[in-house]
Amino acid sequence: MDQDRSRLNLEEPRRVTIREVARAAGVSVSTASKALNEQGRMSPETRDRVRQIARDVGFRPNAVARALVGKRSFTLGLITNDTYGRFTLPVAAGLASAMASKGVSVFLCAVDDDPARVRLSIEAMEDKRVDGLVIAGKRIDRAPPLENRRPAMPVVYANAATPPEGVGFVPDDKRGGALAARHLLSLGRRRLAHISGPEDFAAVALRAAGWCQVLRDAGLEPYGKSLHGSWSEAFGYETGLFLRERLGTERYPDAVFCGNDQIARGLIDALQVRQIRVPEDIAVVGYDNWDIFARATRPPLTTIDMALTRLGECAGLTLLDMIAGKAVEPGLRKLPCHLVMRQSCGGEQIGDAT
Amino acid sequence: MDQDRSRLNLEEPRRVTIREVARAAGVSVSTASKALNEQGRMSPETRDRVRQIARDVGFRPNAVARALVGKRSFTLGLITNDTYGRFTLPVAAGLASAMASKGVSVFLCAVDDDPARVRLSIEAMEDKRVDGLVIAGKRIDRAPPLENRRPAMPVVYANAATPPEGVGFVPDDKRGGALAARHLLSLGRRRLAHISGPEDFAAVALRAAGWCQVLRDAGLEPYGKSLHGSWSEAFGYETGLFLRERLGTERYPDAVFCGNDQIARGLIDALQVRQIRVPEDIAVVGYDNWDIFARATRPPLTTIDMALTRLGECAGLTLLDMIAGKAVEPGLRKLPCHLVMRQSCGGEQIGDAT
Repeated sequence: MDQDRSRLNLEEPRRVTIREVARAAGVSVSTASKALNEQGRMSPETRDRVRQIARDVGFRPNAVARALVGKRSFTLGLITNDTYGRFTLPVAAGLASAMASKGVSVFLCAVDDDPARVRLSIEAMEDKRVDGLVIAGKRIDRAPPLENRRPAMPVVYANAATPPEGVGFVPDDKRGGALAARHLLSLGRRRLAHISGPEDFAAVALRAAGWCQVLRDAGLEPYGKSLHGSWSEAFGYETGLFLRERLGTERYPDAVFCGNDQIARGLIDALQVRQIRVPEDIAVVGYDNWDIFARATRPPLTTIDMALTRLGECAGLTLLDMIAGKAVEPGLRKLPCHLVMRQSCGGEQIGDAT
Repeated sequence: MDQDRSRLNLEEPRRVTIREVARAAGVSVSTASKALNEQGRMSPETRDRVRQIARDVGFRPNAVARALVGKRSFTLGLITNDTYGRFTLPVAAGLASAMASKGVSVFLCAVDDDPARVRLSIEAMEDKRVDGLVIAGKRIDRAPPLENRRPAMPVVYANAATPPEGVGFVPDDKRGGALAARHLLSLGRRRLAHISGPEDFAAVALRAAGWCQVLRDAGLEPYGKSLHGSWSEAFGYETGLFLRERLGTERYPDAVFCGNDQIARGLIDALQVRQIRVPEDIAVVGYDNWDIFARATRPPLTTIDMALTRLGECAGLTLLDMIAGKAVEPGLRKLPCHLVMRQSCGGEQIGDAT
């Protein structure tokens, strides 16, 4: 059968009709149609058999005709302004993988921050009658510029600002900061400094809040001034070269929690120039678990993983519920982060989630 | 007018009809239709006026109905097995940007290397009647596993293996290797070593061939053994720690051309540990111009840029020609790379293409 199909595919593409599916399954066209549309009553065995046969013979319902009469098209759209892909690619991977197992395809449009591009993409998604839309971003306090345009389909936000009546998924950054602090405290570190990205990012404030709360619960204050700069190795490196001076402290900290992995890597490189040992003298925790950085750092970086792949899965499954007409509460869902231990803090290397 | 539209969009989405466009333009429905479909004779002024009015009032032809009668849908598909996005994201950015200016949207499906996922995605693209398909990859000698399936639409390959009768675009890797060699020769370097990725990559052989040819034309041989390893900082770092031993040479090379930026960065870090100065003692050229690595390297990396954004543009424009029925020669197009000078070779910093 498979051989026949591949031979067939080398010829002019030809669609298998529902009549052929019905004949092969020994049921009426109407029963076959109900089985494939998940409508009407029949035994689960019959439904499964028809669907299996449809798959075997390569049947695909005519999506265009189906869309015209308002049925599902088994496609989702994903619109993102993260053209670099750092955040959206793991989200897209989780989404596409969870959806593929349900026979649903995901179309991604990367739009940068140009409202005209966003409009064009949303219109294209609407024109193509995708069943629903995931709107993804590169930070939790911004979204692609929709300009009051409400897509004519169910929408879920992922790692992006979510409007009050919307459904959204973001990493729990406050918990991420708390995880870093607890880990360092558990290793006996007590002079705990934090350096992070620009202050106007909501994630920066949340990570710092989670971090500070755990410190205060332990009777400690953050060690030295809090330092903010770009999300870059360069900022980490410059800070590392003059760490005490920048923090305004007499002694070095014994641990630094960095707002992302690039800052952490720059910091560690600079500490090595200053002959300060990581993790013996200073333990370092990163954030993101971006593995091309986290693994290449010497020593490899212990860091917080935002579980963006899982976030993409959750966004997709919730969107399917909305498309199916199930009641979904509006609001923001914060998904747990987790700590990935490598070697930049010492302690036992208990595993690597990636 | 714009205010009215945004107010309208807050209400239930409502489609503007072609009748309203015709009325606003003071032409018949038939003339409006011809103007918007680029068919039929009329003055360019009339056509432009109708199209401008259609844009102003937010008219969009019903894509589903249009697809049913075989007209263009003004969408392209992009299927890639580069789930990391390193290669496909710049290609996608160039493609989407060139297409946006023509009112064409691009839907991306990332498929990894699972044939079932590839099939699902191609079927979804066909079902949605996209006008054409770009198939993109992460190396020039592989493509997503289509398994003899010929998509029912025009196809262009981008940075992927192209079948003999297909149309494809790849970076000119041989020229990239030659550019690196010419640059180092022009700076007076004469002991020129090359370390690169795994030998089974076609790009590795092509870069080495271009490199060697320029050296031989200058009466030189490659300095030391050619070394191959993974595309990682770790390989560059280990090689750098024992560079003479690995190359099998008595003296250090005075220049190293690395197969990608990650190898180059690892090499430079190791040379610093050995107190070898870059670029004074050894000049280093990378490959890729992956800016998060190339800019963060100390000193910032001189490297070869494969112009993948331009490659995406070219692939899209050629695909539009094929969709429009123009004659397009099958075959592989090799697009020029260029050198981006930063500071890892010395010489004058003449600019930065990124």
